[in-house]
Amino acid sequence: MHTPEPHLEPKPARLSACEMTEIVMPNDANPLGIMLGGRLLHIMDIAATIAAMRHAGHPCVTTSFDSVDFHTPIHIGEVCIVRARVTWTGRTSLEVGIDVFAESPIKGERRHTTSAFATFVALDQETGRPTRVPPLLLETDEDRRCFAEGEQRRRLRLARRHARG
Amino acid sequence: MHTPEPHLEPKPARLSACEMTEIVMPNDANPLGIMLGGRLLHIMDIAATIAAMRHAGHPCVTTSFDSVDFHTPIHIGEVCIVRARVTWTGRTSLEVGIDVFAESPIKGERRHTTSAFATFVALDQETGRPTRVPPLLLETDEDRRCFAEGEQRRRLRLARRHARG
Amino acid sequence: MHTPEPHLEPKPARLSACEMTEIVMPNDANPLGIMLGGRLLHIMDIAATIAAMRHAGHPCVTTSFDSVDFHTPIHIGEVCIVRARVTWTGRTSLEVGIDVFAESPIKGERRHTTSAFATFVALDQETGRPTRVPPLLLETDEDRRCFAEGEQRRRLRLARRHARG
Amino acid sequence: MHTPEPHLEPKPARLSACEMTEIVMPNDANPLGIMLGGRLLHIMDIAATIAAMRHAGHPCVTTSFDSVDFHTPIHIGEVCIVRARVTWTGRTSLEVGIDVFAESPIKGERRHTTSAFATFVALDQETGRPTRVPPLLLETDEDRRCFAEGEQRRRLRLARRHARG
Amino acid sequence: MHTPEPHLEPKPARLSACEMTEIVMPNDANPLGIMLGGRLLHIMDIAATIAAMRHAGHPCVTTSFDSVDFHTPIHIGEVCIVRARVTWTGRTSLEVGIDVFAESPIKGERRHTTSAFATFVALDQETGRPTRVPPLLLETDEDRRCFAEGEQRRRLRLARRHARG
Amino acid sequence: MHTPEPHLEPKPARLSACEMTEIVMPNDANPLGIMLGGRLLHIMDIAATIAAMRHAGHPCVTTSFDSVDFHTPIHIGEVCIVRARVTWTGRTSLEVGIDVFAESPIKGERRHTTSAFATFVALDQETGRPTRVPPLLLETDEDRRCFAEGEQRRRLRLARRHARG
Repeated sequence: MHTPEPHLEPKPARLSACEMTEIVMPNDANPLGIMLGGRLLHIMDIAATIAAMRHAGHPCVTTSFDSVDFHTPIHIGEVCIVRARVTWTGRTSLEVGIDVFAESPIKGERRHTTSAFATFVALDQETGRPTRVPPLLLETDEDRRCFAEGEQRRRLRLARRHARG
Repeated sequence: MHTPEPHLEPKPARLSACEMTEIVMPNDANPLGIMLGGRLLHIMDIAATIAAMRHAGHPCVTTSFDSVDFHTPIHIGEVCIVRARVTWTGRTSLEVGIDVFAESPIKGERRHTTSAFATFVALDQETGRPTRVPPLLLETDEDRRCFAEGEQRRRLRLARRHARG
Repeated sequence: MHTPEPHLEPKPARLSACEMTEIVMPNDANPLGIMLGGRLLHIMDIAATIAAMRHAGHPCVTTSFDSVDFHTPIHIGEVCIVRARVTWTGRTSLEVGIDVFAESPIKGERRHTTSAFATFVALDQETGRPTRVPPLLLETDEDRRCFAEGEQRRRLRLARRHARG
Repeated sequence: MHTPEPHLEPKPARLSACEMTEIVMPNDANPLGIMLGGRLLHIMDIAATIAAMRHAGHPCVTTSFDSVDFHTPIHIGEVCIVRARVTWTGRTSLEVGIDVFAESPIKGERRHTTSAFATFVALDQETGRPTRVPPLLLETDEDRRCFAEGEQRRRLRLARRHARG
Repeated sequence: MHTPEPHLEPKPARLSACEMTEIVMPNDANPLGIMLGGRLLHIMDIAATIAAMRHAGHPCVTTSFDSVDFHTPIHIGEVCIVRARVTWTGRTSLEVGIDVFAESPIKGERRHTTSAFATFVALDQETGRPTRVPPLLLETDEDRRCFAEGEQRRRLRLARRHARG
Repeated sequence: MHTPEPHLEPKPARLSACEMTEIVMPNDANPLGIMLGGRLLHIMDIAATIAAMRHAGHPCVTTSFDSVDFHTPIHIGEVCIVRARVTWTGRTSLEVGIDVFAESPIKGERRHTTSAFATFVALDQETGRPTRVPPLLLETDEDRRCFAEGEQRRRLRLARRHARG
């Protein structure tokens, strides 16, 4: 007989959503002045980690990044806006959706640059072991659609990991 | 007889407002694990510069920082949220209000840490000379109150610079 | 009638392969001392960019990162070894395979941490436009197998981009 | 009846004064090549923190920065010289005066760029609580004038904090 | 009578050799676009530290750097390849040889830039005291020649330290 | 018949001497909390470059670093003081002497950590070619002794480069 798990109050995604804004500096770019893809992945992961930790109430570690396409280059002096929002939760894992926009603060145009999904596992700060996360409170139809698609992405990831062995 | 200045369309503050979120990393903190005040001033200035550039449509350079009080320490692993919003505009200069909140992503409490006002001058990208900025479109009573107080802060700054010689 | 394209000499992958070694520093890790996934993606992209540029003889920009699973955490003080090698080439684009190993320099054990494929486009340094890359010289059966699988991954990416719209 | 406080030997400001020299690098500047105001505030705070810790013999945390005017821009490749010196001490808090000079190492001209006053509180390394700092030994008329003005700035700061609520 | 020292299995240099590859970024260079000598020494020391730690199985601290000549400048956008390999071992200290190559990934030419020898002491992770390192297993004539020259360099270093007092 | 070289006014070393102060941050240190030797070499080179550029009135590039011994470890939270001073000048090259002190700002003890000599060549900003530097004005007996020893170190360096081929 095991101890029943404590009940965790559901939380809506809007309470943990995270917005980051960064100026692209010379060290973030290649000699053509184009932001390095890896630097962008770096800040996408930080924004997603903040959203995951806020939802979980525990430190969270990235377990996977789904495929990412970079649609348009971002240049030195431009501004990146990264938005991250929890889209799905499991028992100890959760999925975060990330959208990136680039903007010339001079010209004022904003363009969608890329989007991605990352998954995280919540870890207990004492034991370092996976720990339960609150369920996601689905408030809108959009929330429910995202969650259902999250279930499907999860199945694809499990199949992918199985195939890669 | 001089060329009349072009008419610049007024812009509301909400269009240029900027939100930044950062995790406090070990290199941002002193050996007690408390975020360095100067590191916080650094990111406050970056958020304010983005808001100023978005409003001006030109590169902007910080000309002053009003006095800043740090109410509560921020620790490694906590999250800083910096919000910047244009509060006053002159002919080639503008003022940005900055609010900083700190939050433990684990405990979920958010606290107001500090606020400040910084001023900027807009520079023409070709000549490097000061250039006109669009007037601020005041949409709410709060906008009008901020602007009137901005006028007053400006008078105090001019008096201060005069006194310092 | 258009100018015929110049003939580009095929190059083997071993000539452009890149190995990077990094120590995980405190600023690369979360408060549990575990390396941030985004920081690892950052250095994976740098290693892959070097391999791509060496092969292409032109600056290369990341166009996509295939899905990545992080199998085991890497800790502060451990060493990351990142190996990148061109696996497929098209007309102006190429694919790089990346393998990451983590190692405790004290205990001496090395473990495979993750692998990924990234794609790049080569850009002419003057015009900034896509430019031709040398074909990959396939020297071994392993080279030929990787290339064939690269063709397949490319078809999946094109289908993915089409589906995402 | 409380334990009498230990007597702390007065120390002159010259023993804790700090000089920092930095080259302005590309990542410290905006796209016009002008050093970011926030980056300058960052190194001003570090120099002042070193002077405060040396005087106090304890870790010190920034509690306020008085208003700062940036008189002249500093460019990439120029050198910043930051000088910090304790100007006033209280029971557990102290004030540091900071002067910044910019210099082109090629042209050799040095110009005064800005000055500011920052306040600090000394913290006990074990308890993290405010702890007593040695009184300032006033050796010259300049020292005495600075200290008297420091008393006045302190009164203004207390009034300011009270007004801000 | 003292406890006899445990027998440590000899290790060949090839097992601990380290290769690092870095792109020279704007912040690594002076305003002429030439990599700073100190930045290069920094990464040479990191590569050598990794090789030393791998051989020793303990944290290692740099105790000296032999004289270094920089033969050719390295420019922004070029790639540095740093190779480090243990060349000599004593009781608790060891010597690492370092070779640096620079390469334009566009032009594809690789040139030898500098080489150096650094010495390290291995420290016990608990006590922080010097601790024994495994002897170097000399497998080739080249290994034996390097080791014999290492003995000679060691004698010169001891004489140098004695002369400097 | 060639154009006679312009007469360059001699300059004393004290006018170009440079002092840098840095706090050792977590990212500057190994897992035992000891500052990395390479990070120290990095800031020694920056201080020496500033002194060289100030004397030359031209950008200067490091051409060699003489051997360096690290006498005592420096820990996280301690302060490094680096002092650089021109000791010898030739036609287009110059030598800078560097002294490093470490200090616990809490305990207040200062200790000599290392010293080194680095050489530089001055480059014309337009042509990138070596250009003449002003002779060193020797004001004190110490200046004259340093210069004479600089001549001797130069002969040893030339012999060393010759021997290394």
